[in-house]
Amino acid sequence: MMFWLLVVGLALILEQFLFSSDAAEELKQAIATKNHELVYLHDLNLVDEVWGESRPKPPKKPIRIHDLKYAGLDVASKLSSLRSELVDAGSSAIVISVLDEVAWLLNLRGSDVPHSPVMYAYLIVELDGAKLFMDNSKVTPEVMDHLKKAGIELRPYDCILTEIESLAAQGTHLWLDTSSVNAAIANTYKSACDKYMGSLGNKTTGQSNIYDSSNGQSGGPTGVYGLSPISLAKAVKNHAELEGMRNSHLRDAAALAQFWVWVEDEIHKDVKLTEVEVADKLLDFRSKQAGFIDTSFDTISASGANGAIIHYKPETESCAVVDAKKLFLLDSGAQYVDGTTDITRTVHFGEPTARQKECFTRVLQGHIALDQAVFPESTPGFVLDVFARSFLWKIGLDYRHGTGHGVGAALNVHEGPQSISFRYGNMTPLLRGMIVSNEPGYYEDHAFGIRIENLLYVKEVDTPNRFGGVGYLGFEKLTFVPIQSKLIDLSLLSAVEVDWLNDYHSQVWEKVSPLLDGSAHQWLWNNTRPLVK
Amino acid sequence: MMFWLLVVGLALILEQFLFSSDAAEELKQAIATKNHELVYLHDLNLVDEVWGESRPKPPKKPIRIHDLKYAGLDVASKLSSLRSELVDAGSSAIVISVLDEVAWLLNLRGSDVPHSPVMYAYLIVELDGAKLFMDNSKVTPEVMDHLKKAGIELRPYDCILTEIESLAAQGTHLWLDTSSVNAAIANTYKSACDKYMGSLGNKTTGQSNIYDSSNGQSGGPTGVYGLSPISLAKAVKNHAELEGMRNSHLRDAAALAQFWVWVEDEIHKDVKLTEVEVADKLLDFRSKQAGFIDTSFDTISASGANGAIIHYKPETESCAVVDAKKLFLLDSGAQYVDGTTDITRTVHFGEPTARQKECFTRVLQGHIALDQAVFPESTPGFVLDVFARSFLWKIGLDYRHGTGHGVGAALNVHEGPQSISFRYGNMTPLLRGMIVSNEPGYYEDHAFGIRIENLLYVKEVDTPNRFGGVGYLGFEKLTFVPIQSKLIDLSLLSAVEVDWLNDYHSQVWEKVSPLLDGSAHQWLWNNTRPLVK
Repeated sequence: MMFWLLVVGLALILEQFLFSSDAAEELKQAIATKNHELVYLHDLNLVDEVWGESRPKPPKKPIRIHDLKYAGLDVASKLSSLRSELVDAGSSAIVISVLDEVAWLLNLRGSDVPHSPVMYAYLIVELDGAKLFMDNSKVTPEVMDHLKKAGIELRPYDCILTEIESLAAQGTHLWLDTSSVNAAIANTYKSACDKYMGSLGNKTTGQSNIYDSSNGQSGGPTGVYGLSPISLAKAVKNHAELEGMRNSHLRDAAALAQFWVWVEDEIHKDVKLTEVEVADKLLDFRSKQAGFIDTSFDTISASGANGAIIHYKPETESCAVVDAKKLFLLDSGAQYVDGTTDITRTVHFGEPTARQKECFTRVLQGHIALDQAVFPESTPGFVLDVFARSFLWKIGLDYRHGTGHGVGAALNVHEGPQSISFRYGNMTPLLRGMIVSNEPGYYEDHAFGIRIENLLYVKEVDTPNRFGGVGYLGFEKLTFVPIQSKLIDLSLLSAVEVDWLNDYHSQVWEKVSPLLDGSAHQWLWNNTRPLVK
Repeated sequence: MMFWLLVVGLALILEQFLFSSDAAEELKQAIATKNHELVYLHDLNLVDEVWGESRPKPPKKPIRIHDLKYAGLDVASKLSSLRSELVDAGSSAIVISVLDEVAWLLNLRGSDVPHSPVMYAYLIVELDGAKLFMDNSKVTPEVMDHLKKAGIELRPYDCILTEIESLAAQGTHLWLDTSSVNAAIANTYKSACDKYMGSLGNKTTGQSNIYDSSNGQSGGPTGVYGLSPISLAKAVKNHAELEGMRNSHLRDAAALAQFWVWVEDEIHKDVKLTEVEVADKLLDFRSKQAGFIDTSFDTISASGANGAIIHYKPETESCAVVDAKKLFLLDSGAQYVDGTTDITRTVHFGEPTARQKECFTRVLQGHIALDQAVFPESTPGFVLDVFARSFLWKIGLDYRHGTGHGVGAALNVHEGPQSISFRYGNMTPLLRGMIVSNEPGYYEDHAFGIRIENLLYVKEVDTPNRFGGVGYLGFEKLTFVPIQSKLIDLSLLSAVEVDWLNDYHSQVWEKVSPLLDGSAHQWLWNNTRPLVK
């Protein structure tokens, strides 16, 4: 999402729909120390003025229902749980402005944002109803029916602030997650509350119906500030969501096997392929898989030194040819109707150097150590980060990114609240059903990049003891694509690590080979043979 | 140290010399929410009143100079560094009330507190002088000379508050570490500052000499609040301190070898020894070592189920007989003139069960993993804690204490600011020269306790790479005492772990055998033979 600000004289002008309330507040305080002022724009968007008529039209593609067999829980059940949380928190309504939270809660999917199956919308859930604010031209009769069944009314997108004002005027205790809700909504609610309290002070006759506590409300409106309860509910996947993730990952693995045999063949035939051509071909293979919708992010197809640029995006005009004599890093993913994938593999089409093999093997050892971690309930993700780094640390190497991020089920490829990172502030514990990536790497500037990424989900481990009466958790893999053996320095691996790799490849063969035939089937066989130390 | 408070009506009476300023403030705020009041005692100590004449006399043993060959840095140098820090922080004096900080800074040692070689004292360091507040009957002519050389004046212990008032009246910006300085000092300084500012308001003629900025002071006195700079300086050991720690650990290891052969012999002869008798005998052996001064804490000598009580202290009247058929946990340490030791070993005099062996082996694996950790500069200790637990976690076990604490050099056996713990709040990085214990354990209630503890110091590791341009750190062992092989389930250990154990035992033999003869020499040989997997 684009956001912008302009320094004009000593006033900083801020388009308040484009900043979260917390971000705007932080900015306000920061510039106040320099005697600058933050000015909110209300009925004017400077960038729109500059665009004029040439501004691209907003996306208009219809939204679709996310099938219950993939969602696992109907909208009524999700709303019911949410309303219990509202009551427990002493609030009577919540405004949800995070797009994947709206999509998850309503079992709807859109295509307004590249790679993310979401639609522009706001949702207000009250104890006895809910209102969805979006462009109704995207709403098919089927979706309208779906919304009606769940007791959700449709409102124009532009009416959100009016509704916020109206909620305040009714004395609603509105739950606001100021880390995600935009400054316009938070400020509108605060002003309306102030206005309400002001008008109350002037009243001398009786009490208005806003004192009626039948709706759990009494006194004036007050905000309930806290993290959105949807964030955690969405992160903890149910059985159907996990099933969809598992299935989509197998089809994705089949597409990758077809892709890898193709790219190896081309390169061995000495065909010059650019990084973009390779990425496009991968998209071709994926798009033939059932339920394919989109890529889940811009493919990182990076040959040689480009692999050391962590968020490298090849461009048609400027990208490199995939060099058979260099490492090739491919980080890609897809959106399917039933799940979201995100996988990185690093390969060499010729002969890797000893240095490359040592680095790759240590990245792999970190990947294995995290994959195999067992930990008590309530463990924050950052505690596990060190498992992924320790083999690199032994020889004075490291990588400058986190090790794991959350992933949505047929939703955004990056989601919170959990993470596995050297940023030690995120205390969110890893919970059963959460999905995280496991992606240690190593990047040598101007030379090469290595990353090995699988998606995992958190599951209970059946340990022989349960010290402290708590459960012990571990991971189950979602990704089943071979890891290139020629990059492994076997002398560095322990017997347990070799067993891990052989067991993984045996599972890859067992799960993915039924989806393949011909050369891809043979490629999978060749690339899943056990290593002997 | 004893501390106490009394709830009297709605007022909580607090002896302000016995609470740190932060603790008193926290208490004040906590009881204020219940409409209670905190009342400070000034010239009265209720416990002293109750004691009357029967109160034991305060300790009077003379203090001694900590030899420069063990301290490594003379007092003048330490004071000079401290004064630079004062200037950098904008303060012109510091009050030091933590006893081991006073002892470290002045290269003095006392015997006022059991197990800790410190003396009751306050120290005020100004930019151009320093005053030590203590009972002068403990000061020998030699110590007096030592103090004079460093420009330190002696003052009666009771004069500390008068001096604090006087500093405020002189406009001194006093550095106060409110996490350690007692409430009496902090409150006295604040009141005196207020008084000063009040008197300033009434003045109409000229400026008093407290406006003279020749001493780095101008305007009124203001406190500089921050962690004591001595804490970190003391934690990072210099070459001489490390050398003293290494040497004292070898003598300590010799005493332990003599002890272990004795206790094994006695038990095999079926002599019934109580936990206290065993601890006393260990003290006998230690006290014969050169430079022995005291134990460094109450010995935890725990047979069978007593081992599961983490801070178990056997008492002569009630303690158990050391049972040849149960695990025996011995956590002990000593103060020597050149160093402080702290070691735990767990042994079985008969045949351990498979369960005991599995638990012991997993504790050992955690011990090895932490010992072998390599990590970049700036890594807080808590990041490494998981290494010590992960092998227990795999089977659903854990332990309810931290893994490592700081240890003083011929000083307190517990010191900060670093730690290795599952309490993730302590962001203090591990620095070269810091000493930490490595003491994972496992405790099975009503059955047995296991702990394996060595002391380590942090050192630079010569890694082949230095990613990010930072140094990579690791540990070097200080403790050289055999780990009982019969408690190890070899099938659980990797080849690398067996190598670690064999290498450790080979070092134990090499370093400690020259200090032994007779049966202890033979015992060390028997207990340092390499294991073959």
